[in-house]
Amino acid sequence: MDDHVYKIVELVGSSTQSIEDAIQTAIKRADQTIRNLRWFEVIQTRGHVENGQVRHYQVVLKAGFTLEEGGQ
Amino acid sequence: MDDHVYKIVELVGSSTQSIEDAIQTAIKRADQTIRNLRWFEVIQTRGHVENGQVRHYQVVLKAGFTLEEGGQ
Amino acid sequence: MDDHVYKIVELVGSSTQSIEDAIQTAIKRADQTIRNLRWFEVIQTRGHVENGQVRHYQVVLKAGFTLEEGGQ
Amino acid sequence: MDDHVYKIVELVGSSTQSIEDAIQTAIKRADQTIRNLRWFEVIQTRGHVENGQVRHYQVVLKAGFTLEEGGQ
Amino acid sequence: MDDHVYKIVELVGSSTQSIEDAIQTAIKRADQTIRNLRWFEVIQTRGHVENGQVRHYQVVLKAGFTLEEGGQ
Amino acid sequence: MDDHVYKIVELVGSSTQSIEDAIQTAIKRADQTIRNLRWFEVIQTRGHVENGQVRHYQVVLKAGFTLEEGGQ
Amino acid sequence: MDDHVYKIVELVGSSTQSIEDAIQTAIKRADQTIRNLRWFEVIQTRGHVENGQVRHYQVVLKAGFTLEEGGQ
Amino acid sequence: MDDHVYKIVELVGSSTQSIEDAIQTAIKRADQTIRNLRWFEVIQTRGHVENGQVRHYQVVLKAGFTLEEGGQ
Amino acid sequence: MDDHVYKIVELVGSSTQSIEDAIQTAIKRADQTIRNLRWFEVIQTRGHVENGQVRHYQVVLKAGFTLEEGGQ
Amino acid sequence: MDDHVYKIVELVGSSTQSIEDAIQTAIKRADQTIRNLRWFEVIQTRGHVENGQVRHYQVVLKAGFTLEEGGQ
Amino acid sequence: MDDHVYKIVELVGSSTQSIEDAIQTAIKRADQTIRNLRWFEVIQTRGHVENGQVRHYQVVLKAGFTLEEGGQ
Amino acid sequence: MDDHVYKIVELVGSSTQSIEDAIQTAIKRADQTIRNLRWFEVIQTRGHVENGQVRHYQVVLKAGFTLEEGGQ
Repeated sequence: MDDHVYKIVELVGSSTQSIEDAIQTAIKRADQTIRNLRWFEVIQTRGHVENGQVRHYQVVLKAGFTLEEGGQ
Repeated sequence: MDDHVYKIVELVGSSTQSIEDAIQTAIKRADQTIRNLRWFEVIQTRGHVENGQVRHYQVVLKAGFTLEEGGQ
Repeated sequence: MDDHVYKIVELVGSSTQSIEDAIQTAIKRADQTIRNLRWFEVIQTRGHVENGQVRHYQVVLKAGFTLEEGGQ
Repeated sequence: MDDHVYKIVELVGSSTQSIEDAIQTAIKRADQTIRNLRWFEVIQTRGHVENGQVRHYQVVLKAGFTLEEGGQ
Repeated sequence: MDDHVYKIVELVGSSTQSIEDAIQTAIKRADQTIRNLRWFEVIQTRGHVENGQVRHYQVVLKAGFTLEEGGQ
Repeated sequence: MDDHVYKIVELVGSSTQSIEDAIQTAIKRADQTIRNLRWFEVIQTRGHVENGQVRHYQVVLKAGFTLEEGGQ
Repeated sequence: MDDHVYKIVELVGSSTQSIEDAIQTAIKRADQTIRNLRWFEVIQTRGHVENGQVRHYQVVLKAGFTLEEGGQ
Repeated sequence: MDDHVYKIVELVGSSTQSIEDAIQTAIKRADQTIRNLRWFEVIQTRGHVENGQVRHYQVVLKAGFTLEEGGQ
Repeated sequence: MDDHVYKIVELVGSSTQSIEDAIQTAIKRADQTIRNLRWFEVIQTRGHVENGQVRHYQVVLKAGFTLEEGGQ
Repeated sequence: MDDHVYKIVELVGSSTQSIEDAIQTAIKRADQTIRNLRWFEVIQTRGHVENGQVRHYQVVLKAGFTLEEGGQ
Repeated sequence: MDDHVYKIVELVGSSTQSIEDAIQTAIKRADQTIRNLRWFEVIQTRGHVENGQVRHYQVVLKAGFTLEEGGQ
Repeated sequence: MDDHVYKIVELVGSSTQSIEDAIQTAIKRADQTIRNLRWFEVIQTRGHVENGQVRHYQVVLKAGFTLEEGGQ
């Protein structure tokens, strides 16, 4: 991180595959409307269960992006 | 929660009546500009005092909403 | 609390009415199978939203009960 | 909060009625000896149970008051 | 989560393969005696090391299940 | 800890003698109904006071035990 | 804080000078797009080091602003 | 705890002997000026070291006492 | 810290200048009525904003002082 | 864990592949200079993003090793 | 603590006797290689159980020592 | 942070001047024996008081450095 100003948003992504895939799902979706995503931090990992099997993983994460001059 | 991607915002609502009313005040106001609010979690409960009486309750909460394709 | 040994369980109750009612709902249901419930502590307060209105409150709580000789 | 110096005390109030009433009970009692109570923050919410019913709510809170020149 | 009452248990699962497999191991084992497991939350991720290699992952998780009428 | 699945319970023990004795009291009582207790972790240490003397210590602890095949 | 509804955003500011200047940098930049910023709270203070010297301070903060009718 | 209002104070006691003795030292000293001390909770346990030996234990604790009508 | 018994109070100081000055403001004011203040610990740093400028810093701190025989 | 004395170090490992690989990377590197690494605990999981893709995962972990007589 | 620079290490000591003895065991062992140990803080207290008896206590602690000029 | 492995150490620096100077004091001293210090995070800010004046600030921080092949 250099001398930019960053804004941090909180996201929840999910995946039937893995924790990493749930993170990537959230990042990819947020990237559609937020430019300049730079880093993330996992806040919570959880999931849903059906018939004794993990149905999907859900990851709550904070993601930071640079605030450019004039934009949001 | 299913396989959508969610975004979480942090809000503060207040009420002279009750903690529940302070929550509802924040949710109702946020609903004017955020579509698809789905859940909330109370982060902090506090309030102001005047002459030995609680003047109003303030509740800090996180609220999650689904990020739809192409929106917000 | 006196010199008994206690066991603590974690419960989630919900109510469309209030936080207090969600607590009471969890306590009443647990009381059907756990004898000697003595105290509770609220761990988390959250809820679901529909159309900008709180649909129900959910309260996560820990509840303690005395372990009697030879039981449970 | 403006540029006063505040002191914060920790209190426990209880009520058979509601969480809000337990807060108000603590604030009202503290107001007898502490001038200038201004705000509170709920630290913990708990209670006692008898026969599967909540007997009373107990709320631990921090309450802040202005330190006036020369007093308390 | 709807208006059921839930009970939450704390479990530790392990796996030589991955964090996800350790979660699944705990869920599958708990499912043998607990009906209606619905969700989990990861509380802690740790593991054991031998000769500079991770021997197995251990995941501490909370898992919630619905309390049905009359059962535990 | 090896590759078993563990379940964790939360207990409160007390003693007029010492913190260690309060821990031992909780473990010994839980051992009457839970097979295979393996470890504990202290969550909170507190106590009651009478006439300026500690009347007893109370220790809240988590205790883990192995879930054997087929049992609870 | 009065009876407005507030929204809270999380920001990271940095400065080669001081912690206070890093806070001010984040506030000033956020003020370009967020009307009615009212308060902040420092969440984390960190920084980067080069050749045994602090190169810059980075402060993560939460900042609250009033949600006016009809706006974001 | 019944329906009194309590006030909580934070104390540090120390002892060359044991953690329990450090708790008792703080409680006994506070009892000289605070009537009706009822319970304590250990917040932190630490100590000083000299020549590879623990010189004394220091325990930070919160202690609660009933606020009687008219007194502090 | 030696073998005295300490009491800890929680204070909020503010300053338009700096975090250090807000700390000093609280300490100086508390020193008017509390003898033997020895140390402090910062619990929270926050502040108010006006027109995109930090108007003042507010620091919540815990401060410890020795309880002398027979006093306070 | 038996009756050895352990020392705990804090490490950060990274990987473009997975969280598990980031853990393994840190453990393997630490093993070059620290004998007898026995366990780890994940403290934080984060990562960097480029063009809407996770570029690499970073895992902060604590790792414990036995202090042998006379060494390290 | 005066104006030295300190370094803090994290240790785990164990004892079949008591929590205090587990602390002392860790301090004594660390003192063989670390000069100038000054203070410790208990981070976690846990232990192992065999046949319903505490087999040994384990204490995780942070210990601080002065960094002298030129040494580690 | 790129794909290096980092080690994190915990330090305490102090200064009679400011929080920033206390951070710099710890970093500068650690830099004498630790190569490649890259970042720090403030864990705790505290200080000592004499005669109602802050005598010095003490900052506890974590500092990270790259583990180079074959070193430290």
